[in-house]
Amino acid sequence: MQHRAERIRKSGQTIAFVPTMGYLHKGHLSLMVHASNLADHLVASIFVNPTQFGPNEDLSKYPRDPERDAALAAEAGVDILFTPHEKDLYPAGFETFVTQEALPDHLCGLSRPGHFRGVLTIVTKLFHIVKPHFAVFGEKDFQQLAVIRKMTADLNFDTEIIGAPTIRESDGLAMSSRNKFLSESHRKSALVLYRCLTEARRMVAEGETDPQKIIKMSEAEINAEADTAIDYIAICHPDTLDDVRVIGQPAVMALAVKVGSTRLIDNRMLFPPGSEPG
Amino acid sequence: MQHRAERIRKSGQTIAFVPTMGYLHKGHLSLMVHASNLADHLVASIFVNPTQFGPNEDLSKYPRDPERDAALAAEAGVDILFTPHEKDLYPAGFETFVTQEALPDHLCGLSRPGHFRGVLTIVTKLFHIVKPHFAVFGEKDFQQLAVIRKMTADLNFDTEIIGAPTIRESDGLAMSSRNKFLSESHRKSALVLYRCLTEARRMVAEGETDPQKIIKMSEAEINAEADTAIDYIAICHPDTLDDVRVIGQPAVMALAVKVGSTRLIDNRMLFPPGSEPG
Repeated sequence: MQHRAERIRKSGQTIAFVPTMGYLHKGHLSLMVHASNLADHLVASIFVNPTQFGPNEDLSKYPRDPERDAALAAEAGVDILFTPHEKDLYPAGFETFVTQEALPDHLCGLSRPGHFRGVLTIVTKLFHIVKPHFAVFGEKDFQQLAVIRKMTADLNFDTEIIGAPTIRESDGLAMSSRNKFLSESHRKSALVLYRCLTEARRMVAEGETDPQKIIKMSEAEINAEADTAIDYIAICHPDTLDDVRVIGQPAVMALAVKVGSTRLIDNRMLFPPGSEPG
Repeated sequence: MQHRAERIRKSGQTIAFVPTMGYLHKGHLSLMVHASNLADHLVASIFVNPTQFGPNEDLSKYPRDPERDAALAAEAGVDILFTPHEKDLYPAGFETFVTQEALPDHLCGLSRPGHFRGVLTIVTKLFHIVKPHFAVFGEKDFQQLAVIRKMTADLNFDTEIIGAPTIRESDGLAMSSRNKFLSESHRKSALVLYRCLTEARRMVAEGETDPQKIIKMSEAEINAEADTAIDYIAICHPDTLDDVRVIGQPAVMALAVKVGSTRLIDNRMLFPPGSEPG
């Protein structure tokens, strides 16, 4: 793959890259379609990265379907599907990691210690192998996007990071490979995430500036659903992820909720009156 | 620099790279001459990297002489001398680092916590900017070379790491920018490092297999010199840097000694009978 990437770069052509953990859904496919318009070649990778899972997390039961993935990726315009083996990317004695000091100390990083170290390390490795001019990540994993953007700037990677909008089911549920674990009743409960985000967005658009009021509203909504457990609800600065005290500028509301045993995350931007983009 | 490097790579030409902290001496120049034979273009950098100095170390008094360095580098065949500013490489809010778990937990890493994190981070940044096909490091900083080799493999850098032999004064003292801090009498005491390494090499060539005997001999030699303080004396595996219990294979002897207030390091390979290279 690295040789192939180098040959493409030498020929003066460009590479766009979409790294994934497979079990592709419409969210991934939209990233791929987005990426295919950016460059001459579209590379996607499928690798369930062990270093970003905690000891009590769902690595072994993470869903996989390599054949279906390959067909879907080809349909979405992927020229090169890179599917490395774990023992090639993490041979015995592997010991080098990429870390951050501040950004992981927020949101998902707090309940998933080591998660973003694993993400930064695998993204560094994949960037070195795939040598992309552009890399596309979904805004659904908002903190991941922020962390990767920061790493790319801090470590002088020659890759442009592009965020692509969250793709949702018709009823608003954000697409995720983990949605398949939801039972029918949990699938209904899971809608509360998007409902809270939409209600929050409305409140801020109508002038609410107190994050605590929005968070309390959301807590009540979520706790009213059976089998839910809140991990976090935060309203924060889109770059630093620090909590916002007064919503005077566009902020991101992010939340993580366990529905049954499935942990779901979602986020939306909140725009105070007059701050809407475009 | 990054654009220039990309243009060179696109043209099908190759880049060799020698990163330095400046105040160039014959050791650096020999790395540069070595590197200039490897590739079409030779890039050297001069940057006194703050993140590899501890809070009580000699960052502010590290010697600098940019004009002399530029002349010497040009003479040694450097095509592009890259001299970035600190605020460009470490802007406010910088927070991404490259770390290792095992190798820094040896030798210099023990007395210089965070040192190799700083080294790995700056080398990653410089590699991303300079995009070298080859990078040359001196064997004098043996642990540094081991740590960088491991990082390059672990993180899939597309750069070949090349170690170049230590250059010595005619009396055996390893060249170092820090030698300039030695008074006349300390300069004489400093010879004890090379004397111990040479004696150790002789002992092992003649059949000594017990590292402890060699280390005790060296301790006695060094303590007999005025104004010396041993940081470490180790005989270890050249890749893992783990202490060797029996010298049955080629091993590296490494030592760090303060002479006056100047910390000096040096190392040599020890070859049991029949294991000499070539």
